[in-house]
Amino acid sequence: MPATNIEDLIALCKRRGFIFQSSEIYGGTQGLYDYGPLGVELKNNIKNSWWKSVVYERDDVEGLDAAILTKQSVLKYSGHEETFTDPLVDCKSCGERFRADQVPEYCKKEDLTEPRQFNLMFKTNIGPVDDGKTFAYLRPETAQQIFTNFKNVVDSTSRNVPFGIAQIGKAFRNEITLKSFIFRVREFEQMELEFFVVPGTDEDWHKKWVELRINWWEKQGVPKKSLELYEVPKDELAHYSKATVDIMYKFPHGVEELEGIANRTDFDLGSHSKNQDELGLKSKVSENNESNAKLALKDENNNWMVPFVIEPSAGVDRAILAILNEAYHLEKIEDKERVVLKLKPHLSPIKAAIIPLKKNDKKIVVKAKEIKNKLQSLGMGRVLFENSGNIGKNYRRHDEIGTPICITIDFETLEEETVTVRDRDTMSQKRVSISDLEKVFKDLF
Amino acid sequence: MPATNIEDLIALCKRRGFIFQSSEIYGGTQGLYDYGPLGVELKNNIKNSWWKSVVYERDDVEGLDAAILTKQSVLKYSGHEETFTDPLVDCKSCGERFRADQVPEYCKKEDLTEPRQFNLMFKTNIGPVDDGKTFAYLRPETAQQIFTNFKNVVDSTSRNVPFGIAQIGKAFRNEITLKSFIFRVREFEQMELEFFVVPGTDEDWHKKWVELRINWWEKQGVPKKSLELYEVPKDELAHYSKATVDIMYKFPHGVEELEGIANRTDFDLGSHSKNQDELGLKSKVSENNESNAKLALKDENNNWMVPFVIEPSAGVDRAILAILNEAYHLEKIEDKERVVLKLKPHLSPIKAAIIPLKKNDKKIVVKAKEIKNKLQSLGMGRVLFENSGNIGKNYRRHDEIGTPICITIDFETLEEETVTVRDRDTMSQKRVSISDLEKVFKDLF
Repeated sequence: MPATNIEDLIALCKRRGFIFQSSEIYGGTQGLYDYGPLGVELKNNIKNSWWKSVVYERDDVEGLDAAILTKQSVLKYSGHEETFTDPLVDCKSCGERFRADQVPEYCKKEDLTEPRQFNLMFKTNIGPVDDGKTFAYLRPETAQQIFTNFKNVVDSTSRNVPFGIAQIGKAFRNEITLKSFIFRVREFEQMELEFFVVPGTDEDWHKKWVELRINWWEKQGVPKKSLELYEVPKDELAHYSKATVDIMYKFPHGVEELEGIANRTDFDLGSHSKNQDELGLKSKVSENNESNAKLALKDENNNWMVPFVIEPSAGVDRAILAILNEAYHLEKIEDKERVVLKLKPHLSPIKAAIIPLKKNDKKIVVKAKEIKNKLQSLGMGRVLFENSGNIGKNYRRHDEIGTPICITIDFETLEEETVTVRDRDTMSQKRVSISDLEKVFKDLF
Repeated sequence: MPATNIEDLIALCKRRGFIFQSSEIYGGTQGLYDYGPLGVELKNNIKNSWWKSVVYERDDVEGLDAAILTKQSVLKYSGHEETFTDPLVDCKSCGERFRADQVPEYCKKEDLTEPRQFNLMFKTNIGPVDDGKTFAYLRPETAQQIFTNFKNVVDSTSRNVPFGIAQIGKAFRNEITLKSFIFRVREFEQMELEFFVVPGTDEDWHKKWVELRINWWEKQGVPKKSLELYEVPKDELAHYSKATVDIMYKFPHGVEELEGIANRTDFDLGSHSKNQDELGLKSKVSENNESNAKLALKDENNNWMVPFVIEPSAGVDRAILAILNEAYHLEKIEDKERVVLKLKPHLSPIKAAIIPLKKNDKKIVVKAKEIKNKLQSLGMGRVLFENSGNIGKNYRRHDEIGTPICITIDFETLEEETVTVRDRDTMSQKRVSISDLEKVFKDLF
């Protein structure tokens, strides 16, 4: 059973070192969070799982890692300068500013100004002269620099459609209304794939990617029954989109978007191209006099062809929230309670805890370190040497942080070369010989 | 033999898809680069190698991943607002602005203004009101949010000294004089460890970390003979430092800093603490009336103790430049030349290329994909299915990008279950049975 309220999750995240408010010792900053010792591992595990599934296990996707600071032209031709806005109103009575659709009830209608469009992109001066002209944007999404690098990637890898370019990285939005812990924040991380296809095959590829992405979420421990598909109505589509399917998840605060999968047509490659009238574009783009490249391919008849783009775009922070929420269990055992995070082992921040029964017994400690190093060297992720000397407390802590197994080293270990392996979910303990331990450990993943 | 000039490296990086200039189709932005399909793999491999060595293989270091946008107070008390500056001069004749120590020869002394201090931090407005008051900085280093999270990490992990907190992430500096490809840029990535120790043991730990870090560089293919240690003279030390040792590398443009290892004393934790006069600080800090925490531990006598900090701080982009430079070899073979990147296999962007001899032979292609999937599943990194049908071209390409082995699937494979394995460095080819392939592959790493 997922967490029933977000407060339990937030408390666990802080207490155990998953997520802290940023700059907390100075009162914090709204909408900014820091990932702690366990959070960074969980986050990296999710990112690696996505990269593996989208890049490594396919034969048609390349990776990219572009700069965050983005030249103005990129976000001018992408349409962000003009349309990436929220309508804001000022309340003349309380002096606060709100998103027009999110004015609190205590503000009276007659006190509100007419809505003004407010651009959500952060910008910063670049270079030694601060005259308001030489600025860069902090990218509001990772997608755009995938498009601007289209030709570079094609030229260096000899790719042809269908193929994709994947990127994971930070994006920034000056959100006015922050929401629900890490659900809507000002600095977040995205996992975006731009998958380029022959026009006409785009609708099939769109369906296929919706399916593939749902399967991926299931493997991360977010089951189908917690997901809903939402076909965005035509009149609500973003300016670049022919069709968008949102994968919606039952977050503690309500059903909201976890990932969007859009058919972006040839809008983006077309928008960033020179000589657009030679390209036979299907979408309507603004004239571009600054680009020095045609972001297009030649088809078999030597005509220019601008691929359509299918974009599965997921948020890493929302993934963390959904995955933690699904993993969170409060169990009653006789008259006690335990909190346990039933994370999929490949996502667990700690893969195994190695616990010497006595923290001052040199032989036991040496043996425990030996086993830690052995399991660590298998490359499955972080293995923790736990030398606090309190087994019960360690079990409780590792249940709460989702460690699949605890391995205890005791006096029998020294005599018989066996250890106790305790399972997180069943709490069962069994004696395992050290020679079998590697297999038991690997079989978890 | 490393690359003799940087132009060869830059050309290779662009041609093969390691590194592109950012926003290139719009004329680029100085000091910003995008990592392409191979660059992102190399970069991730270096970061993983550091994380493994600093976090996973030790029992005394925790990880962190903090926000880039940083509250003003953090960089006020760290000293950055006041001291993180370069002196700039204007030339009244050409109208350009330069760092005072880097004025080009064509500017005459009498045309230059007096130097003014210019702060290198980027800032950006945050929230709906842009009145110059509600801004955040883009962090100029990852270190500071390690210090501000000191108490959060200690409380959630029960750590005691000696222990460290490690972080990898982007940092931003509005550099005026950019330099040598990715050596000095405006957006870069750092790998920083803040290692907290009992005052008095700091000098020993400082020596130890210098040694450990040199060993790490050697394992990445940067040999000791290419490194020099530079003890920063007392009068050139940063305001927080008691002693700093720079690991200097022979970059193509000269001998420059690759990593700095500083003894930061108790300056940082002290600077970010409240009630500083109760802490017995050894360093001189500014009074702090904004912090709500004491970043200190209780010693065995229940007195406050502020740990000293040893900081090994390395740049990811500089690491990439040094590692590529060391790996680059131009070899003469009879009357031909070949370029080969002799990267350590754990850093190679592609771990193995699987090449079907005929790209249209279905049986060979199916077999090749089978082998690709098998090796990919071992979790050693990216394995590439290469279906361009030209073996010679593929060998040449994979030499240039540092792929340790190429595996060719041919008609004999179908009959005898063997493949040809070609070694990057020796160019030798041998027949290997498919059942042994997994071992041959794993033994590379």
